Amino acid sequence: MKKSKPTILVVNDDGITAPGIKVLIEVMQTIGNVVVVAPDGPQSGTGHAITIAKPLRLDKVDLYEGVEMYKCSGTPVDCVKLAVNKVFKGKKPDLCVSGINHGLNNSINVLYSGTMSAAVEGAIESIPSIGFSFDDFSYEADFSNCIKYIESITKQVLNHGLPLGTLLNVNFPRGEGIKGIKICRQANAKWAEEFDERTDPNRRKYYWLTGVFQNNDHGEDTDVWALDNGFVSVVPVQFDMTAHHAIPLLNTWDF
Amino acid sequence: MKKSKPTILVVNDDGITAPGIKVLIEVMQTIGNVVVVAPDGPQSGTGHAITIAKPLRLDKVDLYEGVEMYKCSGTPVDCVKLAVNKVFKGKKPDLCVSGINHGLNNSINVLYSGTMSAAVEGAIESIPSIGFSFDDFSYEADFSNCIKYIESITKQVLNHGLPLGTLLNVNFPRGEGIKGIKICRQANAKWAEEFDERTDPNRRKYYWLTGVFQNNDHGEDTDVWALDNGFVSVVPVQFDMTAHHAIPLLNTWDF
Repeated sequence: MKKSKPTILVVNDDGITAPGIKVLIEVMQTIGNVVVVAPDGPQSGTGHAITIAKPLRLDKVDLYEGVEMYKCSGTPVDCVKLAVNKVFKGKKPDLCVSGINHGLNNSINVLYSGTMSAAVEGAIESIPSIGFSFDDFSYEADFSNCIKYIESITKQVLNHGLPLGTLLNVNFPRGEGIKGIKICRQANAKWAEEFDERTDPNRRKYYWLTGVFQNNDHGEDTDVWALDNGFVSVVPVQFDMTAHHAIPLLNTWDF
Repeated sequence: MKKSKPTILVVNDDGITAPGIKVLIEVMQTIGNVVVVAPDGPQSGTGHAITIAKPLRLDKVDLYEGVEMYKCSGTPVDCVKLAVNKVFKGKKPDLCVSGINHGLNNSINVLYSGTMSAAVEGAIESIPSIGFSFDDFSYEADFSNCIKYIESITKQVLNHGLPLGTLLNVNFPRGEGIKGIKICRQANAKWAEEFDERTDPNRRKYYWLTGVFQNNDHGEDTDVWALDNGFVSVVPVQFDMTAHHAIPLLNTWDF
């Protein structure tokens, strides 16, 4: 009996017209039946936001031949929720992939990233989920070196499944000669924020977020290390945020 | 030598005029010097979103006597970033408290909640941080039973500090006769989403997110159990989302 092709939900946070999602759609078409539900515009940095105070739009679009596609007015997490509920109508896809993000989502960026939050939401829905991100913000980013790794990682996930409550955060370094794949932990890094202070035409002050990524983690088992050294980083991510190691300590406190 | 009073940053996601933050400000005024930086309107469900594609406003307001207060046009996480950078100018507060949220943020809600994401951002900034939430969405919520627990937990955190990279997620049950405090783990629950499908005056379809909270976790060490049984739930939370237990498994895969 021929095994039927897997159904694959593709989502992102850069919006449905971004070059990165086009590459991801093309790779996924070689593996399974693709359904795209993606934001109708950029949603970078929206983290795990959901839309509760206003209505959502979900409209069919016809961008790429032979691909069922919907644009959504909400966040990446809204896209996954609407896909599960209104597109798949409860019959879940076999896989959820998010990206390819224009820009890295390693380390602490897993929290801020709409790309990764969409994959987290897929995992909450018990769908094996992977987020893919590439170290190039530009519209002209050349994703071609990522493709064989996306195929390999995707096929492994489809074959093995993923442990319950986990998903993968995959980041690709820039440049020629990727050295291979490293399984990593999230580096303990952060953004040192600065805010550009400016004055509007009405002479009122406003601020624009900017910042510098600061890695204070010298471990060679982190995603930051892997990427700095030319490897694809693969971090297994979980959505249980409990600091289990801190429970015994708190139980000694005298409330 | 008299110990100087701690400086306390107060933030929330329901907005600066919400009753819940007023109660939290009043309690914190009995403990330390309070600075408030809170959204200028409701930001529920914004998770760890940050504002990167547009400018932010930060304006001083004078709502409650003797309290330094700023309203911010951005998300709760933006509020913490602007507080650290532009209000405290790098000289960090001794404590960051978020809430009191109108509605529970137990279990998986830690991901969707702006209240909790603000506390997570405080912890990323190495500020001891606590999120407080109460099981009552209404504007008229009576927070009075929460107050003695907020005082007790806050003083314990100021005395002991918190383990690096962790914060507390504190939720209060409704009703009289709270039985005490339980240190818990995040329950493995989720929202079963539904979307109200409606038609706008132009006969176009739109969707409104709704849903039912589903707890599939029967452990008696969870926050859902504690709240159902009349306890205040205290979950230590971490922002390292690595599924460390899955690393050895992934290392056996043949990429």
